[in-house]
Amino acid sequence: MRYTIGFPGTDPADLLVNETIFHNANGYIGVRSCFEEGYAPGINSIRGSYINGFYDFAEMKQAEKLCGLIEEKQTMLNVADTQGIKLFIDDEEFSLWNGAVLEGSRTLDMEKGFTERRILWRSPRGKEAEIRIRRLASFTRLPLFLIDYSVRALNFSGVLRFVSTHKGDVRNYSNPDDPRVAAESVHYLTPVRADIEGTSSFISSDTVRSGLRVCTGVTHTLRPEDGAAADCLPDTAVRKSGHRAETEIITTLEKGGTAQLLKYSVFTDSLRYADCEQRARRELREAAEGGPETVYRAQEAYLADFWDKAYLKIEGDEKLNTAVTYNMYQLLQSAGKDAHGTIAAKGLSGEGYEGHYFWDTEMYIEPFFTLTVPEIGRNFISYRHATLGEARKNAGALGHKRGALFPWRTIMGRECSGYFPSGTAQYHINGDIAWSVVSYYLAAGDFDFIVEKGAELLFECARLWMDAGVWYKGRFEIHCVTGPDEYTCLVNNNYFTNLAAKFNLRWAVRFYAMLREAGALESLARKIDLTADEIAGFEKAEQAMYLPYDEELGINPQDDSFLSKKRWDLANTPKEDFPLLLHYHPLHLYRRQVCKQADTVLAHFIFEDAQSEETIRKSFLYYEGITTHDSSLSTCIFSIAASRLGFREKAYAYFGDSAMLDLYNTHGNTKDGIHTANMGGVWMAIVYGFGGVRIAESGLSFSPRLPEQWQACCFRIAYRDSRVQVEMTGTGTTFTLLTGTEKIIQVYGKPLTLRDTLRVAGE
Amino acid sequence: MRYTIGFPGTDPADLLVNETIFHNANGYIGVRSCFEEGYAPGINSIRGSYINGFYDFAEMKQAEKLCGLIEEKQTMLNVADTQGIKLFIDDEEFSLWNGAVLEGSRTLDMEKGFTERRILWRSPRGKEAEIRIRRLASFTRLPLFLIDYSVRALNFSGVLRFVSTHKGDVRNYSNPDDPRVAAESVHYLTPVRADIEGTSSFISSDTVRSGLRVCTGVTHTLRPEDGAAADCLPDTAVRKSGHRAETEIITTLEKGGTAQLLKYSVFTDSLRYADCEQRARRELREAAEGGPETVYRAQEAYLADFWDKAYLKIEGDEKLNTAVTYNMYQLLQSAGKDAHGTIAAKGLSGEGYEGHYFWDTEMYIEPFFTLTVPEIGRNFISYRHATLGEARKNAGALGHKRGALFPWRTIMGRECSGYFPSGTAQYHINGDIAWSVVSYYLAAGDFDFIVEKGAELLFECARLWMDAGVWYKGRFEIHCVTGPDEYTCLVNNNYFTNLAAKFNLRWAVRFYAMLREAGALESLARKIDLTADEIAGFEKAEQAMYLPYDEELGINPQDDSFLSKKRWDLANTPKEDFPLLLHYHPLHLYRRQVCKQADTVLAHFIFEDAQSEETIRKSFLYYEGITTHDSSLSTCIFSIAASRLGFREKAYAYFGDSAMLDLYNTHGNTKDGIHTANMGGVWMAIVYGFGGVRIAESGLSFSPRLPEQWQACCFRIAYRDSRVQVEMTGTGTTFTLLTGTEKIIQVYGKPLTLRDTLRVAGE
Repeated sequence: MRYTIGFPGTDPADLLVNETIFHNANGYIGVRSCFEEGYAPGINSIRGSYINGFYDFAEMKQAEKLCGLIEEKQTMLNVADTQGIKLFIDDEEFSLWNGAVLEGSRTLDMEKGFTERRILWRSPRGKEAEIRIRRLASFTRLPLFLIDYSVRALNFSGVLRFVSTHKGDVRNYSNPDDPRVAAESVHYLTPVRADIEGTSSFISSDTVRSGLRVCTGVTHTLRPEDGAAADCLPDTAVRKSGHRAETEIITTLEKGGTAQLLKYSVFTDSLRYADCEQRARRELREAAEGGPETVYRAQEAYLADFWDKAYLKIEGDEKLNTAVTYNMYQLLQSAGKDAHGTIAAKGLSGEGYEGHYFWDTEMYIEPFFTLTVPEIGRNFISYRHATLGEARKNAGALGHKRGALFPWRTIMGRECSGYFPSGTAQYHINGDIAWSVVSYYLAAGDFDFIVEKGAELLFECARLWMDAGVWYKGRFEIHCVTGPDEYTCLVNNNYFTNLAAKFNLRWAVRFYAMLREAGALESLARKIDLTADEIAGFEKAEQAMYLPYDEELGINPQDDSFLSKKRWDLANTPKEDFPLLLHYHPLHLYRRQVCKQADTVLAHFIFEDAQSEETIRKSFLYYEGITTHDSSLSTCIFSIAASRLGFREKAYAYFGDSAMLDLYNTHGNTKDGIHTANMGGVWMAIVYGFGGVRIAESGLSFSPRLPEQWQACCFRIAYRDSRVQVEMTGTGTTFTLLTGTEKIIQVYGKPLTLRDTLRVAGE
Repeated sequence: MRYTIGFPGTDPADLLVNETIFHNANGYIGVRSCFEEGYAPGINSIRGSYINGFYDFAEMKQAEKLCGLIEEKQTMLNVADTQGIKLFIDDEEFSLWNGAVLEGSRTLDMEKGFTERRILWRSPRGKEAEIRIRRLASFTRLPLFLIDYSVRALNFSGVLRFVSTHKGDVRNYSNPDDPRVAAESVHYLTPVRADIEGTSSFISSDTVRSGLRVCTGVTHTLRPEDGAAADCLPDTAVRKSGHRAETEIITTLEKGGTAQLLKYSVFTDSLRYADCEQRARRELREAAEGGPETVYRAQEAYLADFWDKAYLKIEGDEKLNTAVTYNMYQLLQSAGKDAHGTIAAKGLSGEGYEGHYFWDTEMYIEPFFTLTVPEIGRNFISYRHATLGEARKNAGALGHKRGALFPWRTIMGRECSGYFPSGTAQYHINGDIAWSVVSYYLAAGDFDFIVEKGAELLFECARLWMDAGVWYKGRFEIHCVTGPDEYTCLVNNNYFTNLAAKFNLRWAVRFYAMLREAGALESLARKIDLTADEIAGFEKAEQAMYLPYDEELGINPQDDSFLSKKRWDLANTPKEDFPLLLHYHPLHLYRRQVCKQADTVLAHFIFEDAQSEETIRKSFLYYEGITTHDSSLSTCIFSIAASRLGFREKAYAYFGDSAMLDLYNTHGNTKDGIHTANMGGVWMAIVYGFGGVRIAESGLSFSPRLPEQWQACCFRIAYRDSRVQVEMTGTGTTFTLLTGTEKIIQVYGKPLTLRDTLRVAGE
């Protein structure tokens, strides 16, 4: 489980993409994979280190002020630069743009949990050295980022000098030539102190508006030979200049010998740590005392457990298998491990979308964790629960008297959407969160968590629908919202939204009854002033929820007026016009039948029981003809839907479009960060799509449909107290109960008892 | 026809309002009525001089970038300050905050066309002087602004010193404490040269982005006694400091004697004048040579003619009569007299709405001019015609392949709307312009102008509907537009819009036939590539245009889904929540049945033949219950509709709400400028409402309904080759043919021949 590329050269575009591809993260911190020694002058680098959920407020001016439009957003910050290490061999500076690279490679080791850069370098004066740099963001000591830098003298003896930097005066990336990122360099973080303590340095910085602090600490150890001598720092000087610290380490190296520099960086913030400065010192001391072997061992053990749980292997397409493994690894790297943050659109790999969390978390990523490492999935729900207060305020700002409306994009829970028609108006996010809570409950059977947090979330989300909806001619309708498809905005009775609301209301009613039965209702009901009457209202609205259906076409229209619009002629749209949102005014898009992404098709996957197979098939075919997949969230859903409907070739084609996105930079924007939702979607396409997994109240079911391009596909999922392995081959599927008690599972609609192993022939 | 207020004191809020109320304008330049000597330190003043249609481009950042969103607007500029005159009597400086004001008044003389400020002032040391300052923006020499400043020594002999300034280094008004105006002072105009030539000064300034230049020139003459001595300038020094010029004039005055300082300012811009600097010199020389009497005589003659044509008198409510006269005067002051500009939302009286032109011009103001001074109304249409190129580009930016879409707000023809759902999406502006062209044609009978400009406008506007609309189940529908009511946006089949489109298409077909018949079609058809086939398409769409109608309520719904929304409970909305747009998020408003202003009711007035009397009545009553009149464009239309339906008390109540708006500052924001559309609406409420005037293809008709609060009301209108006076009294109406040939007119639906005078009893 390694991903290696040979020496990738020094093409500036590749360098930027590889900063993302090989970034190190652990869900708390993320460091882009820039070169320690830097690039040649003039080459662009997005040199950043980020903390999940750490933000400052930033002004976002509206061209025209209207009541309630958002004018302040949160933005993820580049907090410090601890990557810098310059290497001098007898005063010749190591650089890929200096001397010659004889060999080189970059590797991500997904079992050991580090990245590695290897260069066989010849200096301008002919000294040859093997340089191997490992980097790691620790999954077991979240504040820790380690650089393990070793130099072997191949044909010389000489003096090595490392100059290692720790910079507090950093800013977020800006580029006046790129309209997708900030044009101006904004001042968010103010370094407030820098201390040299022995051979360690500590820098504290405060945000300008949000009142947060981050402390970073750096220390070094040097080993003359691999593990041979005790740690020591010969000829070390630590200097401070403004809010930068510089450590100079000089040693001598005999021909054939190796010097190993260990640079420990820690990042602690005031969101998580009452005294982040003290905590930084402790984390740094403990990490350095433990030494690198401790770190590596813990990292490998953590990942062994993860891969055991998240095991997934595709046989017959090694490249694809690597891409899918890569995706899962990135999801683990990106996922917050506490309630301060979940998983941003770009994880912790770049500044695209400013570190914001979207509905992606619940709809595209949560399923992966719920079925592999459910405690991480539960964290995501805890984060939403922790921001319920902000969601209530958001609902209030939109004029709703009760309930909560979760923000379309946010870090700390407050809405950051600058254009509400395709942002805040996407009320379906409430239903998405409800769906993720129920999915977690059904898979993990964790009723305590529902009592503690889940039910409150569902009740508050349900209340919003009651206020946002309207009774009209005996139907409960929801007007002026935007569904998942942003090419049509502010519509009435978006099918997905109404169905998500219906689901939310139904489960609010269910949880209410379950809590009452369990004697766990009273304190919550009192806390949020919830009565049986209100629940009766939920039930009534749920039952009367209007779901648009067109008799003539036999499909669900995306919304009330969707089918009366002009149909976009995709076949005759020039290639360079995609994505359409970059080439057509919103009014032009809104007026036509054209979809950026799966909307009704997504509804038919998520809420598949709502319609007949026939309607789902017709809808799929109808929307397929007008969907551009301009969003990276679309093809994976079409793949799942195609799998379900037996369109096996389509299922595979849609899947192929998704799986390689980041590792092979197929959308051309991986430099700004990975696409976490797509990564989750790819996993869903395998497990829900080809595996046909569903988890319903009635239990766990499968309809395996192995793509004929593969020899086999094996994956594992967690369900209640057990873990189940599913091994699909060309002839059938083998189910293995890895742990836990026996289960009744449905395979192709037939109930079977899974004790140890069960083999079912293919359909 | 004078409006006088006694000494208005020095309350800062009153000072700001009076800067607007007493501003001097002529449709080309406008100067706010600030004090020549300035206010006490710390008192806020919007000290501005503006030129109609003169602009710079300004950045307008979007919070979230989407394709085609407007990021550059035009803004009207404060071009120079020529108001400043300080007066010293034996070195005691005249100021209302210094010494004592024994008497004082401010007057607007609407027959003579000047404003006058009179102060009986006692200096701190007891010198008493009568100061009388007249100001005038010349209707006959548009670049000229004159200040006629006279001082009479009441109880002293002494030395008078005037220090008169001419400042080029001015900026637009900004106030960080007022969210409705710019918070930051933006640099738009750069003074490029300042010249002293004899006792005159000239300053030229260039805009930063739009490539325009303005030149201002100032000169003075002093008369020791009223007209007694020849003009001379004793002890005059003109100094330059940067881009300011200062003229110091010293004279002596005997007790009882009067000194009269005449300050001539001219404003010329590079939009109108090929060499604006030379032109400024010529205008200034000619004005000063002619002397003030020439200016006053020409001004009075111009106004005599205007009042003869626009005569309107209400008997029985002098205050109201003054307000209505004031409104008409302001419309004349504000209306552009060439194709470079029409009439901004605030005229030339202030910076509110940045000097932008809206649909107001066509729908609320044009009718006044069309029926009184039609050549000004024709200018408005010429302006639209001159900006047709920009409107075509605007249509293209929205994805339309043919036709023109006029901008929602603009100066030079390019869209300036920052929030398209209640801006650019108001496609009805095309229909509004079509209506104004047809109304002008029907009233003036000016077919040549249709050939020259009007038909092209209608054809290009009509094309847009063909591309924006969609055929659905045999109906022609228009989706995703916003009607006049901005509390509901991006809807399908807005009744007003569809009807306006239908009207536009119908008249495009008519004009096509008329042009063909007159042999005037060919060159235009070739120029814009118009074929009979395309016209046939117009006709088909016109006939199939869908007009929503609700059987149950017997009314026209505002749009397809309007009636399914929650009805806003206006009766239980707290007073402080109005205007709603300042207190509710757009999504909250869009989801409810609530109207900012007349929309369907406006349609029933403008296109009254489209529905039965019964439907119009029911619609009026329905929408009345949910309209807040948060726009100043609303009550006048409700008044007209109520008049028509015989709701006489309502008609009068709605009228009363409109008429006094600016003169009595009833909306509290007159300081930012007058409300020109409301002023036009008030006139419409009298003439179309109480007078029941309609001009249709069938001719001129009247249904006079004198409000019982009045003794009489008399007005005049122009129709074809004649001018007609209408005198309504409690017992009946007298029609007089003032000029022109005899006409058949309809009175209360009965055709009558108007030769000289005709008396018809009331209904």
